[in-house]
Amino acid sequence: MQLLKERILKDGTVKPGSILKVDSFLNHQMDISLINEIGKEFKNRFSGLPITKILTIEASGIGIACIAAQYFQVPVVFAKKAQSMNLDGEMYTTKVESFTHKKVYNVILSKKFLGSKDHVLLIDDFLANGCALLGLIDIVKKSGASLEGAGIVIEKGFQEGGKIIRNMGIRLESLAIIDSMTDYSLTFRD
Amino acid sequence: MQLLKERILKDGTVKPGSILKVDSFLNHQMDISLINEIGKEFKNRFSGLPITKILTIEASGIGIACIAAQYFQVPVVFAKKAQSMNLDGEMYTTKVESFTHKKVYNVILSKKFLGSKDHVLLIDDFLANGCALLGLIDIVKKSGASLEGAGIVIEKGFQEGGKIIRNMGIRLESLAIIDSMTDYSLTFRD
Repeated sequence: MQLLKERILKDGTVKPGSILKVDSFLNHQMDISLINEIGKEFKNRFSGLPITKILTIEASGIGIACIAAQYFQVPVVFAKKAQSMNLDGEMYTTKVESFTHKKVYNVILSKKFLGSKDHVLLIDDFLANGCALLGLIDIVKKSGASLEGAGIVIEKGFQEGGKIIRNMGIRLESLAIIDSMTDYSLTFRD
Repeated sequence: MQLLKERILKDGTVKPGSILKVDSFLNHQMDISLINEIGKEFKNRFSGLPITKILTIEASGIGIACIAAQYFQVPVVFAKKAQSMNLDGEMYTTKVESFTHKKVYNVILSKKFLGSKDHVLLIDDFLANGCALLGLIDIVKKSGASLEGAGIVIEKGFQEGGKIIRNMGIRLESLAIIDSMTDYSLTFRD
């Protein structure tokens, strides 16, 4: 997605440890007009599929999923990162290791909101080692729902997540794939 | 907001400890068409103000803020609940006590995304004792930005948050205010 790649080059910054900061438009401050274009692009790429729900994970996936969901006209469900008093009842649970926060946390989703009749599109802002997305895939599997695909805004193509998920036969659409990253430059996959 | 009140009566459930679960449409599964109506209503209530940014707090405020921001045509900034490796540089920080999770956590916002020229609208899903909103108000104060108001989806009018914030002279618009709640019934403020 050309508009997104241009924005990454213009406003993204690279930090030591292969960290790409896009916090001025994607995951701390959010440029809603760009995210609308991202939502439309996901709809283009996953058009014609019988999607009934968009599943994401808190926190930075939620806004993108909600904007995208307007084009699919389906509800968003977001997996939560810790047990909460308000989340009683039956839960799907899985474990996710965070690359950013260097810890393992439990991810939960109420069984009420995902079942065998659902056709699910996963949406998230980043794909690196794939842990968050694999957690969501595990939840979809446990629910018996059909996984229609996964839409990612930025994939770090030099980490293994994308390869693992494509090798599982899952349709993965990343709007910008970064193949290499140094302190001074980014290279996108064509 | 009549549509919201009807939805709370239809799909909300009351749990012991004055907990209102609206997780089927607002803060776990999200009904995007309802949230669009909520966004429009916030725009109606805060029309004519020179709002430049919508500020919310992760996680469940983000989706509502993003949908609402489409009607205001401004970016969303969300305060984060813990230190993250990706969040370097200068931060506004404050402490927030969570009613739901029974703990105190640090809330941070990058100084890059809020400054003295901004006119801020706060948006969140719930207002109970007011801790989250007071944290956001503290961040706005530290930034030197002008606080134009706060838009809340559901206010628990029998807890003190709303009163504290209105007594500070802040324009607070809650789309549904619950004045009392028992195991079997809800009463809305007119």
